[in-house]
Amino acid sequence: PAGRKVLIIYAHQEPKSFNGSLKSIAVEELRKQGCSVTVSDLYAMQFEPRATRSDIVGCLHNSEEFNYGVEMWKAYKRGCLSSDLIEEQKKVQEADLLIFQFPLYWFSMPAIMKGWMDRVLIQGFAHEFPNCYDSGLLKNKLALFSFTTGGSKEMYAKGSINGDIRYLLWPMQHGIMHFCGVELLAPHICFAPEYVSEEEKKEMLIAWAQRLKTLWKEEPINCSPEWYFK
Amino acid sequence: PAGRKVLIIYAHQEPKSFNGSLKSIAVEELRKQGCSVTVSDLYAMQFEPRATRSDIVGCLHNSEEFNYGVEMWKAYKRGCLSSDLIEEQKKVQEADLLIFQFPLYWFSMPAIMKGWMDRVLIQGFAHEFPNCYDSGLLKNKLALFSFTTGGSKEMYAKGSINGDIRYLLWPMQHGIMHFCGVELLAPHICFAPEYVSEEEKKEMLIAWAQRLKTLWKEEPINCSPEWYFK
Repeated sequence: PAGRKVLIIYAHQEPKSFNGSLKSIAVEELRKQGCSVTVSDLYAMQFEPRATRSDIVGCLHNSEEFNYGVEMWKAYKRGCLSSDLIEEQKKVQEADLLIFQFPLYWFSMPAIMKGWMDRVLIQGFAHEFPNCYDSGLLKNKLALFSFTTGGSKEMYAKGSINGDIRYLLWPMQHGIMHFCGVELLAPHICFAPEYVSEEEKKEMLIAWAQRLKTLWKEEPINCSPEWYFK
Repeated sequence: PAGRKVLIIYAHQEPKSFNGSLKSIAVEELRKQGCSVTVSDLYAMQFEPRATRSDIVGCLHNSEEFNYGVEMWKAYKRGCLSSDLIEEQKKVQEADLLIFQFPLYWFSMPAIMKGWMDRVLIQGFAHEFPNCYDSGLLKNKLALFSFTTGGSKEMYAKGSINGDIRYLLWPMQHGIMHFCGVELLAPHICFAPEYVSEEEKKEMLIAWAQRLKTLWKEEPINCSPEWYFK
């Protein structure tokens, strides 16, 4: 894996948090392997999540009726995206692997990370019909969703109150990453770290470090409805 | 329905957009019925989507290690949330029906609306274990997700490339609203308004106005895995 490039998109406010530790472990372990690792620390960057006219520098394609998707597509083609987005797109372009590290907020990613998806992965850059799904513009890249939950593993089992944890992975893994052509490694889920013993927390961190050691040998999941809803 | 209170949480940048029209039709039709209607126009309000320390006024419960969920819960109890959140919570508290009006972004709501969920629906206000799902703190309220898509109805059919549109409703309807005790009216989905004729667009707007006329007679959906994944 020496020479592989990894971008970690990280969304936690607190460096001392469990998510912060998971992020640091990934940076350390992957660098040890000779990978080049970049981190987009979204809260530290005060990353803007709102999709607005400010994302386009200069004139609009149609200033009479603002259409974000169309304007961003045109602005991308003209090289007129705001500099924070150009920066993020460069990082994505160079990466072989994207790791999303976050605490689950409402069966999904925190808004600051959703804003990263909304603003960075635009038409022309990440997809452009018919280049979506297996022929998406970010093909030949891998992604891995690594997150913590509030609820326990039992609460996210099939038939339990929260439903199978895979149900909520569909929009993130299939709807976003697969749509852009990115293949998915199995998600890494740490259930309820706030409610387990220090010992168990340590074991979770060790398990993540262990997984990373052989990450490049993993096969992507088969990202189809069967994987999620079988 | 006279006297009923409705809160429309609206996320589109452009008043002249199709989403803007759907929002205006709801305001008009529901007011005609004698309902009291409030709109949270998130982009116009420049609503903050990021969950940060600024959401708590004054001292933290634990300033050594910032935990957003815990801090917000404690701050809510002490009455120390930032004023924009107190304002939104008042609107929610008073409402009988919440309508979420937005364009689908990446199989989900735009980040600005996800931020509304993340920051407004906090523990103590919207849920507090064991008061979740059918006994969530917002019980006796209704919610309706009204949104537009880029893809056609056929692309969101079961077995087609995007999968059944209901798959992506699970995190929003079940994971957020049902979790807070809110019952769901059937979603209102306008497929691909950007790609249909002016005539078809008009018909979509008329259909929404028509539905609103008998909305208060509708029964909520049975929000269980069967509805989504059957």
